[in-house]
This record gives sequence, structure tokens and C-alpha cells, in this order.
Amino acid sequence: MRVTDVSVTVVAVPDPPLRNVIGCHQPYALRNIIQVRTDDGRVGLSEMPGGTQAQAALRAAARHLIGMDPFAVERLRLLFPGNPRTQSAFEVACLDLVGKAVGRPVADLLGGAVRDRVPFSAYLFFKFATPDGWLATAAGAPAPWTPLGMYGWPDAVLTPEAMVEEADAFVRRYGFRVLKLKAGVLAPALEVETLRLLRARFGPAVGLRIDPNGGWSVPEALDALPALEEIGLEYYEDPVSGGDAMAEIARRTPLPLATNMCVTGFADLPDAVARRTARVILADHHWWGGVGALRHLGRFCEAFGLGLSQHSNTHLGISLAAMVHAAATVPHLTYASDTHYPWQQGWDIVNEPFAFDPADGTLPVPTGPGLGVTLNEDAFRRLAELAAAIPAADCRDDDAAMRRWFPDWTPKDAVVMRRLIS
Amino acid sequence: MRVTDVSVTVVAVPDPPLRNVIGCHQPYALRNIIQVRTDDGRVGLSEMPGGTQAQAALRAAARHLIGMDPFAVERLRLLFPGNPRTQSAFEVACLDLVGKAVGRPVADLLGGAVRDRVPFSAYLFFKFATPDGWLATAAGAPAPWTPLGMYGWPDAVLTPEAMVEEADAFVRRYGFRVLKLKAGVLAPALEVETLRLLRARFGPAVGLRIDPNGGWSVPEALDALPALEEIGLEYYEDPVSGGDAMAEIARRTPLPLATNMCVTGFADLPDAVARRTARVILADHHWWGGVGALRHLGRFCEAFGLGLSQHSNTHLGISLAAMVHAAATVPHLTYASDTHYPWQQGWDIVNEPFAFDPADGTLPVPTGPGLGVTLNEDAFRRLAELAAAIPAADCRDDDAAMRRWFPDWTPKDAVVMRRLIS
Repeated sequence: MRVTDVSVTVVAVPDPPLRNVIGCHQPYALRNIIQVRTDDGRVGLSEMPGGTQAQAALRAAARHLIGMDPFAVERLRLLFPGNPRTQSAFEVACLDLVGKAVGRPVADLLGGAVRDRVPFSAYLFFKFATPDGWLATAAGAPAPWTPLGMYGWPDAVLTPEAMVEEADAFVRRYGFRVLKLKAGVLAPALEVETLRLLRARFGPAVGLRIDPNGGWSVPEALDALPALEEIGLEYYEDPVSGGDAMAEIARRTPLPLATNMCVTGFADLPDAVARRTARVILADHHWWGGVGALRHLGRFCEAFGLGLSQHSNTHLGISLAAMVHAAATVPHLTYASDTHYPWQQGWDIVNEPFAFDPADGTLPVPTGPGLGVTLNEDAFRRLAELAAAIPAADCRDDDAAMRRWFPDWTPKDAVVMRRLIS
Repeated sequence: MRVTDVSVTVVAVPDPPLRNVIGCHQPYALRNIIQVRTDDGRVGLSEMPGGTQAQAALRAAARHLIGMDPFAVERLRLLFPGNPRTQSAFEVACLDLVGKAVGRPVADLLGGAVRDRVPFSAYLFFKFATPDGWLATAAGAPAPWTPLGMYGWPDAVLTPEAMVEEADAFVRRYGFRVLKLKAGVLAPALEVETLRLLRARFGPAVGLRIDPNGGWSVPEALDALPALEEIGLEYYEDPVSGGDAMAEIARRTPLPLATNMCVTGFADLPDAVARRTARVILADHHWWGGVGALRHLGRFCEAFGLGLSQHSNTHLGISLAAMVHAAATVPHLTYASDTHYPWQQGWDIVNEPFAFDPADGTLPVPTGPGLGVTLNEDAFRRLAELAAAIPAADCRDDDAAMRRWFPDWTPKDAVVMRRLIS
């Protein structure tokens, strides 16, 4: 089994105007779909963040794969040193190929599932009301089909009270037992008040998290502590930006700090350990070099007494399948994983879309060979056509989207935030 | 593919009277050979240190494997928590089964080899002349066959000069480019002198290591530093015993300290990092939970700037195969691995005994399915019969062997040393 061909296709996925510290999600989230083909006629799938810029980089890298044995995933680290995103893009596709070749799910290639179902958390965003023409393409036409099962978008969620209703819908529909609030959008006091209302509505059994994406100042983050400690959080994620500021907050609270911003790869671990920057690492196989890297990280976090969960970017079912397989095999995955998936439900490009168990917010580990998902060619073609039709498919730009509402918008700290969303 | 049966057999392997800090190797080294059988008629092999004590523990654990899918190696950590030796014993056998089932070498199941050949180092021991009747069994009979290709044993090596001749034979026969001196036997000054003579004989291209097994005092270890720094070492292994003492030596020398004694599992890593106990971890898949654990450790060492190599206990070809497969897949295996294998050459129980390349001391990665070795049933039966015939097959006891020469012998620090040899 040797690689004969690699294709990388940009797709655009409809996305609501979700708010974050830098701005607002654009009408279409961009993903790269990687298809690695072999001489025995198999196709391995993978999905990565990014538009045509990422596509160009992956295409340039792909030529090194020709002739490769898909079992040889460790070689990807040598082929693409210092480039964990490229490693991840091809590692997942290779594991999909190996699983298909041996008739086993990817989880089995990673040591086997230690849990049958993987828990996820609700990802709650403040958002604008969806404007008319939000999904218009460059040609002026809207998305040319009506998705099934999509989560209703039209209404604004810009107050604590509206967020509680939004959370209620998430819990009823998807069963999530953990609620994560994307913060750094309203005033900190309002976001803390949102958590207080969520606790009042859902009681002590639901886990709460808040993620200001490093957008709060140290005084703001410290001011929030008494209320957050009283409300009770699973973790306090990236309240401030940078290792020094994070360590400062960590010293002042018993709440565990979590991060996907100041620990974004293995090279960040020694400093994080030495300075006690965070007690929970929010890993992402797309950033860390693949699902095998997530397993290495799990063993590290276990040994060092750190918590571990999965970060999420806007994604479709191929990425979600990889997340579920990886999570199923890591004993030490101590927190429910984040996912944006409900926001994209109805637009997935796989024939086996995922459905969270309304009883507990979990997903079953796919049992089919490889990732256990296959491309729905019609849906794939439609999202690829959308990517070709929208004005800016090069890379994500949440500032630009925000300027639809606030023409003078600049992010508080664009440099830091770029690391988060790219 | 489900596990239907597990057998654990003790074998006894002839061994020379090799000296170390606690005493002397016994006439027979004890190993457990694990055979895991599945409902589709396959047998997976594994090899572990130990005699009938270890056998009893493995047999008691083995009942938990019945019905297990050999792909599900991660579950072994949940089945046998806190027992990495049992995890390792069954993990390697399961990987051998999986490799045979999918027609791939174990290295491919671990991400694929990143090197075709794996370097090893000479393991140089001071030793007594082999006494008459050394290999006599309980019944008084010697080992009942003549091994082929064995390394000649009869002469004593108890001076620096004799050790240089021994090393010369090792280099000529096996091609090793790294020489490791098992120390803590003669006076420290004589052992340092041995290294000086080795450097003089073999020149700057050969790597040198010394391992007093924690048997030196802090003043002894410090006194040796100027000479060792001048001679030049790859690493200074466990000169002293315990993390405090190791950290004290580490602060006083640019030589990298290595250890297989104060870092023996993942739980030791946080302290080792915080105190800078050692700069090179000598891992052993038998102790750390298996070859998958070695891969996790490799990624950890890479991130934290630590070196990594493999520790060796007296072993046969099944263990060596596992070591080679694992080493082949870890990019960050920065030092040639230790091996006792030459001391047992000619007594191996596999049909594919290993032969170090006389040009460079490397071994090729086996290309057959699974571990790439199969049991030589005749040789296996003979070593099992030997284990049944010798007086003490319960566990290793280097004190007892030493008392053949020194009736009042007690080890310097038996408590610490038991960790090393068990």
C-alpha cells in the first residue's frame, strides 16, 4: 500500500455570527479536506482548519507523501519538522487508510478505546442576530440548499438572560452536561453574571467553564475570582494573555486554569510546568501534530498531574471523527471535549453525521474501518463550490466580519488572537 | 481475534560470573516467556525478567486477558493499574499478535521505523574466571548442549588492562562503537583508569559510559569528575544513589548524568525535571509499561531536552526484538541502546537469533510479521528444563552468587540495588 495521490480541497461551511474577543465569525468557516489515495484504490480522509493559504501549504507538502507507506506516520515528523499542522493533516488521513486496510477503526490503531462513548461540552457563544443576506456568496446567491437538523440561528444572544435560554436549548437538544461560555465579548461582570444564571438554571450537576480567550486584564481576571469561585467552575480558561499573567492568576485562586493559548505544542510544556501556568491543557490534534501526539500528551499530563481536554475549532465530521477516536483511547482525558459541531449540524459532508446523545451529550466511537466516516460527495461538492464562490476564501478574518457591525473595529490583541483562530 | 489462553514459562539462560555493585551474576539468568494464544490459532510472544515469583504473578494476571482483543493494549493499563511490568508483558505479546494478524512488523504498529538499523553499545563487565561446575544443575549435570557462537567466558577480567582486551574482543566481534563499563566493582580510581585506557586504545570516535549503579559516595563521584571530564563520556550513569545525590553531582559537572535507577517510571518524571536529577533517561520497556510507553517517553524527553536510551537486563531474542522495534520508531532515541545479548549468544530460543553488524554494532529491524521472531521449540524446551533443574529459580540473587567467592559478602546498598535487578 503506497500513496499515489493527494488532493486538498477548500470547503466553506455556513457559520452564524458568533462573537469572540477579536470580533465575529464570518458567514463561512473555511476547512481543508485532505484525500490521500493509494495504489490499492483506498482513500484516506482528513480535515484541517484554513482556506486557500492553508491549502497551498498542504499541497506543497503533499508531494513528499507520494510513494509513502501509510503505516509510516512517525516519518511525517521527520518529513515536516516543526510543522505539526502538516503532520496532523497527513497523519489522520494515513491512519484512516491503515484502518480501512486492516478493517479496524482508528481507535484500535491507537491502542483501542478505553471508553465506548466520548463526552462533549456545549460551546456557548454570544452572537448577533443573523443579518439578511448573511450567507450570500460573491455571486449574490445564498447557500443553494436547505440543511436538515440545523440549530436555529436567527436570534441575537447578547445578554446573560438570552444566553441561559440558548444554553437550555443546547442541553435539551444535545444533552450536554458541561457548558462552556465563550467570553471576552461583553463586560466581564456581565459574563460572570451569565455564569451565575447558568448555575442557577442548571444546578450543581452541570459543569461550567468560561473562556475569555486571554482578553481580560489581570485586574479584571482577579476581580472576577470571588464570584467565579463561588459559582464553581470546571476550569477558568485563558482569562489573560501570556504565561506571566496566567501564572499570576493561577497563584491567586484554587480554580484550575486551563489553556489552549499559552500551551500550544510540546515545546511549551517545560515552561508551563516550571511556571505552573495552567492545570488543564486543551489540546487539539490539528495543532499538536495529530492524534498520536494527543496520546503522548495524555501520558504526559497524567504523569504531571495536569488535566487534559480537547480544544475545538469550527469543524465538520471528519475532524470530529478523529477527535472521538483519539479521545476514546486516552485514559487521562479528564474533561469533556469542546466542539463547535452543533453550529454546523446539517451541513456535514460525511454520510455518517454525528448525533450527540440527548441523555448525556456523548458520542459513540465509530465502529467502521478507519475513521468510520465516508465523504458524502454531493455535500462535499456543494461546500467546495461555496468556497469558490465566496469573496474571501484565503483565511479566516474575524475582524472583517465584525466591521459589518462596527466599521472601526480593531481587536484588543490581534497578535495573540491570531494564534487562536488561524 | 480473541485471547483464549496464556502460558508463562520460566527459562534459565547460562550466564557468566559478571560482577556488579551488589555481587555477581548467578550461573543462570531467569526469564519468563509469555505465549498468548487466540481463537484464530495465532501465538503472540513476550519475554520478561524473573523466575517463578514473576511467573506466579503473571499467571494470576493472565486470566484477565481471556476474551480480550489483542488490539486493545491501552486497556492493559486499566486492567493492571500501577503494574507496568504486567502491562508490558502482555502488551508486547498482543502487538506480536496484531502484527501477525495484519502481516506487519511491530515497528509499523508503532508508527513505522524512522531508522532501518538500531545502534547498540558493548556492555563491559568485570568478571571472575568461570569456575569448574559453574553451569552444574541441581542434579549435578552441566548444561546439556554446546551452544554455537558463544562469546568465550573462561577468563577473569578484574583489572583495567584485562578490560581493555575484553573490549577489544567486543569491538572486533560485534562492531560496537560505544562501550559501557559496569562499575562499582573495583576501586573508583581503577575504574576511572579503565576508562582512560579504553579511550587510549579506541580513540576519540568511540563513545564511553560508566555505570557504578549508584554505588559510589558523593565524594567518590566528585573526585572522579576531573578525570572523567578529561576522558570524555557520553554520559555518567547513576554514579550515586538517590535524587538528592544525583542532583548534587549534576550541578558540579558538564557531563550529562544518566539514570535507570532514580527515574524508573512516569511517576518519577516531575521530580526529575524539577531537580534536574539526570539529563539522560535509560528506559526499559519491561519496566515502563511496554513499547508504547517508550514512545510516550521519547516524546517527553524530546520536549524537555533530555536524552533517551534503553536499559538492558540479561535477555534473549524476544526482548531484543521488542527493543529493536521500539527503538526504530522513536526519533529521539539519542544514544545507542544497552544490551547483554552477547553474553547469552548461542543460547537464544528464537529461530532468528540477532547478529550485530561487525562494522557498526547495529541490528536491522526485523521485517517479518509481529516481532519477527519465532520460538525454537527445542531450545525453548531445553532452557525450560534447565529452569526446572537448577536450585533457585524463584528470583535473581546476586548476593548468593557472590558468596561463592566471598562467604561473608553483603551488598553495599541492597535496598537500592534490588530495584535495579529484579
